[in-house]
Amino acid sequence: MTGWSASRSSASEWGASTRGAPRLVVVGGDAAGMSAAAQAKRLAPELEVVVLEEGPHISYAACGISLLVGGAVSDPSDLLAFTPESAGELRGIQVRVWHRVQELDLGRRRLAGVVAGSGESFSLGFDSLVLATGARPLRPPLPGVELPGVFTLRSLSDGLRLRQWLDRWAPRRAVVAGAGYVGLDMAQALRARSMAVTIVKDRPTPLLGLEPELSALAEEELVRNGCLLLRDAPLFCILERGSASAASGSEGALATGPPESSGSVVGVRAGGEDLAADLVLLALGVRPRSRLAEGAGLRLGHGGAVEVDSRARTSAPGVYAAGDCATQIHRVTGRIVYVTQALAANRQGRVAGANAAMDLLGSSGDGRPRPEHPGTLGTAVLRIFDAEVGLVGLGLAAAREAGLDAVATVITSRTNPGYYPTGGPMKVALIAERRTGRLLGGQVAGAAGAAKRVDTLATALHAGMDLAALAELDLGYAPHFSPVRDPILIAARQALRRV
Amino acid sequence: MTGWSASRSSASEWGASTRGAPRLVVVGGDAAGMSAAAQAKRLAPELEVVVLEEGPHISYAACGISLLVGGAVSDPSDLLAFTPESAGELRGIQVRVWHRVQELDLGRRRLAGVVAGSGESFSLGFDSLVLATGARPLRPPLPGVELPGVFTLRSLSDGLRLRQWLDRWAPRRAVVAGAGYVGLDMAQALRARSMAVTIVKDRPTPLLGLEPELSALAEEELVRNGCLLLRDAPLFCILERGSASAASGSEGALATGPPESSGSVVGVRAGGEDLAADLVLLALGVRPRSRLAEGAGLRLGHGGAVEVDSRARTSAPGVYAAGDCATQIHRVTGRIVYVTQALAANRQGRVAGANAAMDLLGSSGDGRPRPEHPGTLGTAVLRIFDAEVGLVGLGLAAAREAGLDAVATVITSRTNPGYYPTGGPMKVALIAERRTGRLLGGQVAGAAGAAKRVDTLATALHAGMDLAALAELDLGYAPHFSPVRDPILIAARQALRRV
Repeated sequence: MTGWSASRSSASEWGASTRGAPRLVVVGGDAAGMSAAAQAKRLAPELEVVVLEEGPHISYAACGISLLVGGAVSDPSDLLAFTPESAGELRGIQVRVWHRVQELDLGRRRLAGVVAGSGESFSLGFDSLVLATGARPLRPPLPGVELPGVFTLRSLSDGLRLRQWLDRWAPRRAVVAGAGYVGLDMAQALRARSMAVTIVKDRPTPLLGLEPELSALAEEELVRNGCLLLRDAPLFCILERGSASAASGSEGALATGPPESSGSVVGVRAGGEDLAADLVLLALGVRPRSRLAEGAGLRLGHGGAVEVDSRARTSAPGVYAAGDCATQIHRVTGRIVYVTQALAANRQGRVAGANAAMDLLGSSGDGRPRPEHPGTLGTAVLRIFDAEVGLVGLGLAAAREAGLDAVATVITSRTNPGYYPTGGPMKVALIAERRTGRLLGGQVAGAAGAAKRVDTLATALHAGMDLAALAELDLGYAPHFSPVRDPILIAARQALRRV
Repeated sequence: MTGWSASRSSASEWGASTRGAPRLVVVGGDAAGMSAAAQAKRLAPELEVVVLEEGPHISYAACGISLLVGGAVSDPSDLLAFTPESAGELRGIQVRVWHRVQELDLGRRRLAGVVAGSGESFSLGFDSLVLATGARPLRPPLPGVELPGVFTLRSLSDGLRLRQWLDRWAPRRAVVAGAGYVGLDMAQALRARSMAVTIVKDRPTPLLGLEPELSALAEEELVRNGCLLLRDAPLFCILERGSASAASGSEGALATGPPESSGSVVGVRAGGEDLAADLVLLALGVRPRSRLAEGAGLRLGHGGAVEVDSRARTSAPGVYAAGDCATQIHRVTGRIVYVTQALAANRQGRVAGANAAMDLLGSSGDGRPRPEHPGTLGTAVLRIFDAEVGLVGLGLAAAREAGLDAVATVITSRTNPGYYPTGGPMKVALIAERRTGRLLGGQVAGAAGAAKRVDTLATALHAGMDLAALAELDLGYAPHFSPVRDPILIAARQALRRV
């Protein structure tokens, strides 16, 4: 425990432990950070728990932001699980918004930074630290990337900014660069606002790492709903109104678009084509925000994320990391990977908070089992207009890349019996290890009711099931929900013949 | 192998093996029977496979019959997977409809019976036999039970008969006796035809063995949709038009009802009440049709069903039984039970057919592993108007009855995040063994999207998971499908604190 004497009442200089209570500081107030803070306070109410958040919001539902943009959710406060005030009142957590941490001094166990707006600097000692700094959207240094009308989407503030722009300028043509989860969600949100949407994808590969047949189903649904999808069309530059390279003929048509003055976006060049656009959304993936950790000498791992073990420990004693700034353990391969996933962030945050708190409990914490986050299967579900997609575990390429002798089986069935008035086609892909038949991953795509079937595969993967066990599962049947043999059972039996 | 010489060309007397090909006979042409026949033919195309079905239809989707009655499905042929002709053409199976088997002579390996309609008798030798005679609906000997307007529902013919009655007489008030799967399905079908529906349930217990909170959710949905539910109201008798005990005041109101002449149904007496009704549906459960087996001296087991092992073997060599006439093994308790379930019937039929065929393969079948049906978890899903219910494994009462030290945990969550425009409440009940935390069963009830979540629990049960593992599952999250923590994860964590 450090022995500085700085008074806690000074906003710019707080020492640790001034009141005798050890202090846990969490940097970042979203899913992982607030989970860490809440869990620490739950286990050790006597701790002082401080969360430093650089933005105005904490604990928001990041996956709901596209709904806010598209209009399905209108009040942004609906996306907030906590406000800084409610976190304090309900949980006893001190939340400091607008606090941007710029420096981490491990030797002196102290953080320093500035308060946005006032520009005031602050410094804060800690006894235990959780880094939950999240990720930032990739914004490649392409010509035009800083133009008005070019957006990335990560935080709630990003979402509100975009919505405001849409409300104000009513742009009509969007280019969404990137066809990952954010790109696909946002394409739908922009279509919901009656915009023409073109998705440009840099490579010719299937969507989201899906098997080609499942990707085709998703792509058809995009097209059926008026999204143009260009594959193998990497984004080269963003075209500026008034510049010589502006997409030909597009300017005149943009009568109701954003600022007509030169200097706003008028299109993009992607692949070999110039595409007219008065809004460009960059959804090119994210990178972990690990600069603070890196500056302090913490070990970085896969994708440049802060490397942590199953207890969320970084390479420095008493310093934990969790969520989108940290690595995860993949449950199928056992490898350390970088994936961003809300549930995994929550869980890892909780584990980080618990372990950080237990470090400070002294002898009263001795002998209690240390919580662990045993890793992720990378489960994901998404809706694409009226279609649904789910993925879990390894795709075929990832399995082979991990050195496994894997084989993929794809079947087509239906979400419901053929005679049932609703329902539609559903495809299942199973990736299994040859000879052992061990399930390595699975994918589903199809009509309503398809996506959450991936949970069955996630549970089977968690249990280490092989295809024979999967084919024997007693899954629920009634015409409202499934054919007698659920598509997953059909896939498992088919796959059994191929391993 | 028997050596009779009766000619196969005689319709009334066929010996076995007249053409050198051993003969497998299947009694009953629905789910289990046709699965058995198809699987036998698949494994051993050289076998003669004969299916004797007493009715006109084979291989129909029994769970779709209520849709036919309610009007969601109009063409009954949509419910048929095979016709007798298509089974012959596609699979090489000889199907004889209208053939009612009345006698099984194990010593002479011969079946005898009559052909409905013609009244002609027939006799047929077999080398291997699969009994798939199904179940019959319970029709207790109550006064009035044989009146016109009183129906049971089991076969496709039953459904067509009922639909015809509804079309012809447009009855307006129905009493459904029994609140099991058939009763609840049919209550909805009759409401879909704008009838007033009263469900009478003989005991005051929750629906379907659900935990009380989940049953309450289902009951509220019935009421919200205009079904009256009387619990603790055993059916005493069916009231006849013109009889002294006819429900007072009801006759005059039934202006457009069924036959106005005396001798038709006008109500029921259930519990302490007389209820007006011009249609009574008895949905009081089923009994295995095991008379043929019993007459031949086969051992009967739980519920009077033909007792079989995991290979679908009865107590007589070379005789198999499968489906709703046979017992099942419960995967959680290992006990022999009687449950009727379409998927289990299919699977057990397939196992019976495979083993029966392999018996006849001679040395070419030696050493090949014998297929087994390792049992059922009793998984069931159903829709109750806009609500959904799913069950798997043991309920609390069943677990305790099986001698397990069990505890039930019930939580309330939502199918989707609170901010999501659709979705609604969802309850999860988990039944687990104290101390070990082993999952014994689970139930879900709630808005659309709830029911198939039972598959996750079925998979966990199959794998023998405990609550700690269940709480760690990486289930799919996106606002369209689930809160960040799926209700099943919330329930598992809550239950962990209670075991």
